[in-house]
Amino acid sequence: MKVALIGGTGNIGEGLAFRLKLAGYDIIIGSRSEEKAKSKAEHFNNLVESLGGKGDIEGRLNDEAAELADVAVITIPWQHAFETAERLKNKLKGKIVISPIVPMVVENGIFRYTPPEEGSAGLKLQRILGESSVVVAFNNIPAKRFANPAEKFEWDVAVCSDDDDAKKVVMEIVSSIKGLRAFDAGSLDSSRTIEALTPMLINLAKKNKTVELGVRFV
Amino acid sequence: MKVALIGGTGNIGEGLAFRLKLAGYDIIIGSRSEEKAKSKAEHFNNLVESLGGKGDIEGRLNDEAAELADVAVITIPWQHAFETAERLKNKLKGKIVISPIVPMVVENGIFRYTPPEEGSAGLKLQRILGESSVVVAFNNIPAKRFANPAEKFEWDVAVCSDDDDAKKVVMEIVSSIKGLRAFDAGSLDSSRTIEALTPMLINLAKKNKTVELGVRFV
Repeated sequence: MKVALIGGTGNIGEGLAFRLKLAGYDIIIGSRSEEKAKSKAEHFNNLVESLGGKGDIEGRLNDEAAELADVAVITIPWQHAFETAERLKNKLKGKIVISPIVPMVVENGIFRYTPPEEGSAGLKLQRILGESSVVVAFNNIPAKRFANPAEKFEWDVAVCSDDDDAKKVVMEIVSSIKGLRAFDAGSLDSSRTIEALTPMLINLAKKNKTVELGVRFV
Repeated sequence: MKVALIGGTGNIGEGLAFRLKLAGYDIIIGSRSEEKAKSKAEHFNNLVESLGGKGDIEGRLNDEAAELADVAVITIPWQHAFETAERLKNKLKGKIVISPIVPMVVENGIFRYTPPEEGSAGLKLQRILGESSVVVAFNNIPAKRFANPAEKFEWDVAVCSDDDDAKKVVMEIVSSIKGLRAFDAGSLDSSRTIEALTPMLINLAKKNKTVELGVRFV
């Protein structure tokens, strides 16, 4: 199964690139620049090979990556995620699109969730990509720790979607990564709570002077 | 320090009664009926003694419990919590009031957070109890498991308040219970996210066919 990281390795894309490759998925890194896509792919191929895997991650323009993919993850900062989705809409038709997007701002050092009028980034993305199956997942993963191959973690990933089959596929993708457990969080309506948790986790980590924090449901 | 459980042992009151007593706090069980308060106190005293503690939990009318307490926990179903707070307002002046309140409804088997217009139950309670220090805590604790003395758990408790001193006191109360860790979650504004997490945890447990779920920040 081909998984495209649209926007390359922003957000949790960095961790997903090598971890999903090592888990057996075909990975395409998408970027607005072909050169950048290829140089990132090369970087991750070296990393994957140093970890004992096969370095055959492809670097492509976002449009090609979307076209070739079975599953696309939107790994773009939230400020630009929706316009890119709009632009790639036709290429993503009939596909599974994963949204780890969390719209938020910092005010006086405090992170605050700023959902769009649709109620959440996931709901907005599904409105834009009416003919794709949007699945919200990976929102609560601490990106930097996830990007570190030496990091040990046990995190849970709440997965929600209005398409049950797509949700199952994404839960399998989540579970393929060592240290992650997938939880079915129901329909896309749940995305508001899942997304809102991210700025809270960042604030908790800052306030309590810990490393980046993920979540576990126990 | 005297901790009153206003409304007795609804919500997480049952677990708090014997766990906080065993942790060394003086506990008063409040109820609308003196008879009910006393019979509940007796029940918990037997439990505390069977667990090796001193069974001196008092049962009182809510008004007396609020009057005698240093810290009051509102352990009343959300539908009635605010009118009770309104009624006890004068008795609670200058005191710390803990809100584990989570307003929610069930629709087609799915729990949904229904915050009041103030933005959260904690914010509403602080509006009503203008001269008390409202601290939001214990909202994400699975009540039934918490009520079981044999249960082993490791849960985290996000604590928020606009009064930093009151928050510190409550974080100590939380930490006095074995298996609970307190996290400073900032100002009362964070209560919306903390409260919203509870219906999500209930839905996750149902959907994924697990026991009641708490949360851990790791």
